Amino acid sequence: MKIIKTDYMDIIFAENMEYTGKEIEELWAFKLFNTQKDNIVAFKGRMEVRREFMKDLKDLKRENLDIPIKSELAINFIVEHFDISLREIYLRQRILIFIAKEVIESYGIKLKRDGDDLYYKDRKLSVSIASKGKISGKIHLGINILSKGAEHVKIIGLNDLKIDADEVMEKIAINYAKEIDKIEKDMRKTFPL
Amino acid sequence: MKIIKTDYMDIIFAENMEYTGKEIEELWAFKLFNTQKDNIVAFKGRMEVRREFMKDLKDLKRENLDIPIKSELAINFIVEHFDISLREIYLRQRILIFIAKEVIESYGIKLKRDGDDLYYKDRKLSVSIASKGKISGKIHLGINILSKGAEHVKIIGLNDLKIDADEVMEKIAINYAKEIDKIEKDMRKTFPL
Amino acid sequence: MKIIKTDYMDIIFAENMEYTGKEIEELWAFKLFNTQKDNIVAFKGRMEVRREFMKDLKDLKRENLDIPIKSELAINFIVEHFDISLREIYLRQRILIFIAKEVIESYGIKLKRDGDDLYYKDRKLSVSIASKGKISGKIHLGINILSKGAEHVKIIGLNDLKIDADEVMEKIAINYAKEIDKIEKDMRKTFPL
Amino acid sequence: MKIIKTDYMDIIFAENMEYTGKEIEELWAFKLFNTQKDNIVAFKGRMEVRREFMKDLKDLKRENLDIPIKSELAINFIVEHFDISLREIYLRQRILIFIAKEVIESYGIKLKRDGDDLYYKDRKLSVSIASKGKISGKIHLGINILSKGAEHVKIIGLNDLKIDADEVMEKIAINYAKEIDKIEKDMRKTFPL
Amino acid sequence: MKIIKTDYMDIIFAENMEYTGKEIEELWAFKLFNTQKDNIVAFKGRMEVRREFMKDLKDLKRENLDIPIKSELAINFIVEHFDISLREIYLRQRILIFIAKEVIESYGIKLKRDGDDLYYKDRKLSVSIASKGKISGKIHLGINILSKGAEHVKIIGLNDLKIDADEVMEKIAINYAKEIDKIEKDMRKTFPL
Amino acid sequence: MKIIKTDYMDIIFAENMEYTGKEIEELWAFKLFNTQKDNIVAFKGRMEVRREFMKDLKDLKRENLDIPIKSELAINFIVEHFDISLREIYLRQRILIFIAKEVIESYGIKLKRDGDDLYYKDRKLSVSIASKGKISGKIHLGINILSKGAEHVKIIGLNDLKIDADEVMEKIAINYAKEIDKIEKDMRKTFPL
Repeated sequence: MKIIKTDYMDIIFAENMEYTGKEIEELWAFKLFNTQKDNIVAFKGRMEVRREFMKDLKDLKRENLDIPIKSELAINFIVEHFDISLREIYLRQRILIFIAKEVIESYGIKLKRDGDDLYYKDRKLSVSIASKGKISGKIHLGINILSKGAEHVKIIGLNDLKIDADEVMEKIAINYAKEIDKIEKDMRKTFPL
Repeated sequence: MKIIKTDYMDIIFAENMEYTGKEIEELWAFKLFNTQKDNIVAFKGRMEVRREFMKDLKDLKRENLDIPIKSELAINFIVEHFDISLREIYLRQRILIFIAKEVIESYGIKLKRDGDDLYYKDRKLSVSIASKGKISGKIHLGINILSKGAEHVKIIGLNDLKIDADEVMEKIAINYAKEIDKIEKDMRKTFPL
Repeated sequence: MKIIKTDYMDIIFAENMEYTGKEIEELWAFKLFNTQKDNIVAFKGRMEVRREFMKDLKDLKRENLDIPIKSELAINFIVEHFDISLREIYLRQRILIFIAKEVIESYGIKLKRDGDDLYYKDRKLSVSIASKGKISGKIHLGINILSKGAEHVKIIGLNDLKIDADEVMEKIAINYAKEIDKIEKDMRKTFPL
Repeated sequence: MKIIKTDYMDIIFAENMEYTGKEIEELWAFKLFNTQKDNIVAFKGRMEVRREFMKDLKDLKRENLDIPIKSELAINFIVEHFDISLREIYLRQRILIFIAKEVIESYGIKLKRDGDDLYYKDRKLSVSIASKGKISGKIHLGINILSKGAEHVKIIGLNDLKIDADEVMEKIAINYAKEIDKIEKDMRKTFPL
Repeated sequence: MKIIKTDYMDIIFAENMEYTGKEIEELWAFKLFNTQKDNIVAFKGRMEVRREFMKDLKDLKRENLDIPIKSELAINFIVEHFDISLREIYLRQRILIFIAKEVIESYGIKLKRDGDDLYYKDRKLSVSIASKGKISGKIHLGINILSKGAEHVKIIGLNDLKIDADEVMEKIAINYAKEIDKIEKDMRKTFPL
Repeated sequence: MKIIKTDYMDIIFAENMEYTGKEIEELWAFKLFNTQKDNIVAFKGRMEVRREFMKDLKDLKRENLDIPIKSELAINFIVEHFDISLREIYLRQRILIFIAKEVIESYGIKLKRDGDDLYYKDRKLSVSIASKGKISGKIHLGINILSKGAEHVKIIGLNDLKIDADEVMEKIAINYAKEIDKIEKDMRKTFPL
């Protein structure tokens, strides 16, 4: 485990582990990593979210699979911001998606974005969700490394694109935290209307 | 003037006019265009913001120019969201910047982004600010069409990049409003934590 | 099922069904009707809320009945507004009550209102509750069509008052959604203090 | 001057004075009446709001009169709630309007309501506005006593309807404050979703 | 049971009872004491919080005890504020702690404070937690009367300091409620910036 | 000038200067010290607030002096928190007052506190105000070093109490910032209700 601290966030690079959907619960990062700041945790691992841990009710309605989200190997990002509205956590999710896209495209690849989904040509590169509990809002973003595992959807992985997953993982986590820091600074240099 | 209505926003394409900085005041869009929704107004025109209308105190401290922001011809976007926090209007500003970048890059150009600034190589393509009054938060984004006007900064314009300013203007405004609509929809399909 | 869309709300007229209290849970309307907007769902049916689904702790303390809320036939309204404070959902509940009263009184009947309860003379015409979860606030309003079902309370129904329940149901739902739209518009035409 | 105190509000019946529009500024009630609670001030007097004190930009755009709001004699209510959003002060305005309607209709008169306006047949009985400053939100409601003064609009007054203005003024102010108290109590008796 | 009412709070002095951690749930005070205001409940009794009722995850991680919080006799304060953010309930917790310190020090004793903990020399006098649910934020503060019960921590009680627990309990509860009232009044006498 | 950075705040010790009341305006600290964080600025100097710069309307009503606040030499603290409600800035003001009291009392002196005022016996040691603008909330706390300057009020200064003003100034500023940091950490270690 490695922690990088920015002004407003802890960036935590964790050992490989599976993403099961339970990691999106509030305070998960404190339980495992003792962080007491807003935080982004990044790790590599299998992604397998069973129906009971799915937060996306639209996906649940659309699909009858027991394990609607599956990927043999993925980079996972779990973001937690405390004391935040549902709308604000969704705005931040979009910023995370845009940063992921920006980082991956810096490797000379052109992605397509549709809301919070990233595609390479017609193949799905990522899954994402945001939600809110009683004390914090959380985001999950998973980016496939391999193109195996998913049922019913054609997926693609960073390996297929010849992109170094570790490097991308590090850049996205750091750039997100830095962008949040920058936003906090920009808020404090501007005259009111 | 042309208005396109989405679920949560009015998209207003206005006649050419100058951007002077006064347009960032609250209710400006209602005064001119009678919109009573959150809105994005897009227009082309000269950009010339005198010190007294500058909101960016950091820029004011850095530069002694009488007219710190100047561009002979630019696309301007003025966004207004009502009843919003300072933090939230800044999060939305970033989303607007990312969408502008995404649209321009769809023409085969590669931009660099630093916070809310867009660059082509080492030349500045855009200016932006966000702020909050008593009843609304507002964003201004200006994207140069010509590379003339600015002092002290090397700028670039869409014309230099052979990109159609009108088309870009339309796409950015529409994509921003659609993204906001999508975020509002996504908020309403997700189980709480 | 019939859906009418206003600027900020979906108005859903559902098939007859029972109101059991479970319908007040978050995202219930999305589950059944796929709406991804703030919404008001209206339907006719029996009302029977068992103790375990009661949200009104005051009523629970006052009464020892197994099924504290019972009405053989009622119009039911279930409203959901996302990302809202407890206070704000209660303010909106009052507006719904006032609109229900206004619509019913347009039939030449004079009602009495006490907080969120409507009476005709000394007989109770309605029940209502508002509450908040993690992501949305919800309101239930039930208006008796028949005067049967309730224990311990003298109730009255729209049938006793010779008022067309279907017509009233439609008008209340539409007028509520339109009032919310009008409030959103009014907020965007007024100078700050 | 007479003050009645409820749990959350001061109800202040002030001596006759003119309503000029300046009374809607923040802290006006503290300046004159030393109230340090959320408050509703009620008084009778001439209503004459010059363009420069108008908050309703829509009215200003519609009319070219020097004094767009004029009434020879009216009941005026000025409500102040501290630390409140623009949306919430508008929701409360609607509740005040509904209570005014309810009180006046208790005299056997039937009114029509359109948003925040009250009519008797096709004649306008009231004017109202709500807005927000930096620390509080405010509402003004004026109800004509005489049908004189207004230009361009057919108005009606409580005198024409044979309704005692003093009694109505007292009831509306008290009922509004009591409703707010009741809402605060209702919020504190309900299980969360 | 004795209730004192201030402008914004109910102060409830309850019969002796045990503090088990369940009392921190939302609406507990309404269930037992019928209060429908923000409230502070004070009582004496044994304090014994089992792991499953602990809210302090940091304490849980640090200690393996079955009953991490234990005190043979303590004064307990349970505060509930409705419709409040996590940050705000924590700010109020600190104010409660400072008031407790102020009251106890008025007996000529000098305490040390570290965040939300009070010490006499190196011995712990108090435990405290704050948290938030869906509709309210709550605070618990327990101040030992006896120095028995705790494992692993050296504690001290008011009896050791020759301080009258009943008197202190009354003063802290009253002073807290009065401070909140004073804050609400101060907010309503100050010009905005 | 010296800056100490904590997780959430900049602590700025500025050169001696006068406190005139203008320093409470939003962004004042950025203008002078380039801080883009929430901040506390501490400095010594004369305190002289003319009527036009007074925020405390209650004081203005009570006194007819041209310069209602005057002290020949004082420690001044100016705190700025961005994007904050009026209520929250007042809660933080109380925490600042309690910390000032705690620090001064650590010198073996016993103070009395009444709301946001500190007294030694019957003599006033401090003045304080909190308020909110469009983008930030601010607090001023002034603690007399000398007992000269004030009219109509008996004041006392740290010098009379043989307390080192520089040391006290440093401790209060640092302890306030650390307490805010601690609160932010505590919020992120607690299970929701």
